Amino acid sequence: MENVRAVIYGVGAIGVRIAKFILAKKGIEIVGAIDVSPEKVGRDLGDILGLEEKLGVVVSSDASLVFSESKPDITLHATGSYLDKVYPQIVQAVKAGSSVISTCETLAYPYYRYPELSEKLDKLAKEYGVTVLGSGVNPGFIFDTLVATFTGVCETVENIKAVRSLDAAKRRYSFQKKIGLGLSPEEFKRKLDAGEITAHVGYAESIMLVATALGWKIDKIEEVQEPVIAEKTLETEYFKVKPGEVAGIRGLGLGYINGEEVIKLELVAAVGAEDYEEVVIEGNPRLHWRNSMGTPGDLATVAMVVNMIPRVLKAKPGLVTMIDLPPPSAILGDFRQTIRKK
Amino acid sequence: MENVRAVIYGVGAIGVRIAKFILAKKGIEIVGAIDVSPEKVGRDLGDILGLEEKLGVVVSSDASLVFSESKPDITLHATGSYLDKVYPQIVQAVKAGSSVISTCETLAYPYYRYPELSEKLDKLAKEYGVTVLGSGVNPGFIFDTLVATFTGVCETVENIKAVRSLDAAKRRYSFQKKIGLGLSPEEFKRKLDAGEITAHVGYAESIMLVATALGWKIDKIEEVQEPVIAEKTLETEYFKVKPGEVAGIRGLGLGYINGEEVIKLELVAAVGAEDYEEVVIEGNPRLHWRNSMGTPGDLATVAMVVNMIPRVLKAKPGLVTMIDLPPPSAILGDFRQTIRKK
Repeated sequence: MENVRAVIYGVGAIGVRIAKFILAKKGIEIVGAIDVSPEKVGRDLGDILGLEEKLGVVVSSDASLVFSESKPDITLHATGSYLDKVYPQIVQAVKAGSSVISTCETLAYPYYRYPELSEKLDKLAKEYGVTVLGSGVNPGFIFDTLVATFTGVCETVENIKAVRSLDAAKRRYSFQKKIGLGLSPEEFKRKLDAGEITAHVGYAESIMLVATALGWKIDKIEEVQEPVIAEKTLETEYFKVKPGEVAGIRGLGLGYINGEEVIKLELVAAVGAEDYEEVVIEGNPRLHWRNSMGTPGDLATVAMVVNMIPRVLKAKPGLVTMIDLPPPSAILGDFRQTIRKK
Repeated sequence: MENVRAVIYGVGAIGVRIAKFILAKKGIEIVGAIDVSPEKVGRDLGDILGLEEKLGVVVSSDASLVFSESKPDITLHATGSYLDKVYPQIVQAVKAGSSVISTCETLAYPYYRYPELSEKLDKLAKEYGVTVLGSGVNPGFIFDTLVATFTGVCETVENIKAVRSLDAAKRRYSFQKKIGLGLSPEEFKRKLDAGEITAHVGYAESIMLVATALGWKIDKIEEVQEPVIAEKTLETEYFKVKPGEVAGIRGLGLGYINGEEVIKLELVAAVGAEDYEEVVIEGNPRLHWRNSMGTPGDLATVAMVVNMIPRVLKAKPGLVTMIDLPPPSAILGDFRQTIRKK
């Protein structure tokens, strides 16, 4: 049996970690790597990963060439948060006959922000017999797949609250930048409004995933992100934050039915914040799940993307979401064998 | 669009709760009820449920007549823990063209104890174009589906420990009886060995579900159940337990690879025990999830069985397990609409 053939689309911080993760797994190999950065194009992927050995995979900016030469089963895509921006990249993979798992946050439930693109992508994926999934730690897991799964033992659910709190100092540069570390509150607001920083993307997608699984008809969604202001001088590997400057974000996603808040998702990502997740479900029965260790975001996003490969490769063709596929789990065996028979 | 048509197979403590649960849901109706108890046969199901109104569904011991007259989409089966005993009942439903969800614990991962029956049942279900699933709170959720799902964010997993602790005083008579309340330690051992009481059934099934999801090749499973001995007089609605008598059980399921314990499932079901669940995953990352409310067992089993109906009705024909289907979740909308298009 041949190995699962994977292409890395986007050799940034996440793409590099996806590649390393795959190299540690059995029954799967990297057959191509795509990136537009002049610093990366033409270099061997092993070199970029900091390995001593070459991998024989040269990073190329010519996606169509990579696809036609490498014939991947799966493309692991990590280049952007907004589907309209990355849509042509995903289409390229689909037209090359490759299934796709992407960290693109708005692809986790694409029907909310991009109903027309979603329909087009679904048709195209079916036409080419491949499956397209948006996944990651959030959206993709903590605020949605896991929350929906917890409710499996419930007869009724009146209200769901989920909190994810994380110490931003432990995260990579680009994460710290996108949540505005070291900005003044005014700069933060201006940059967030102008789209120069995004903070967290995906509150609405998580709400819609949960609501769709449960059969709730959400009629209003609010997304709010406010800066957390430093009270003392804080320092991370990349930023120095003075008192009065932005030390992180507190974001809310709120889902309503008939004016009543039924889903509240709260993300705290700030320097020094406690690492934990908590899900409280009010219903019959009441549930109160808490992960006191927290879930490291980058590792978890990379794990979700790679661990979903067997589920995606055996799924029906089309555009799917996390709640359409069997539950995620770590894949510790041979990737070829974990693809259960159809 | 017509309602989903459900038959209740086994109108015992769980079957009654399944029926009540369904009556509170939209887009699904009970079209038949099967039980052998002379106290129930011939009576209207509404009467047995303690409702003021009749439901127009008369409990019958003639399963084949019920199936041929009611033509169910789904049979909700709750009559026994061992697949070899209930196999003919499930076959009857399958041959009538009905999918089946059963609380039969050993059906949750039937390939472990009944490999040949599993293969026969899988073939038969495919032949008749229906899907058969074993589910419930445990096996089916806490010790397996949920544990596997938690690992979705992991790159590596070295070891999994899950604990479910529950106050047996809050459970129904037949649960308290099967864990041996009020017996002497010697009677407990004799009755457990003789199969007169079962305590918990399904440690091995939960281990195999987790291992299969993760791709672990478990080479040895141990199941151990010891009585918890009362230190003072305890009383439940149904039993009086004197000091020195059995107040509950502590059970272990242990899964090994090459002599190393990789999965440890611990169930404590005793009068006065704390209600909680806890899952600790040693790996990268480490995770420590805890539900401080506990999960009420009967309600959760009933919820799992009913909430999985839409997932089963849209699944491929055959014998499936919880890790083959999309994640469970509460179904709060119309059951017809939550069946996502194929």
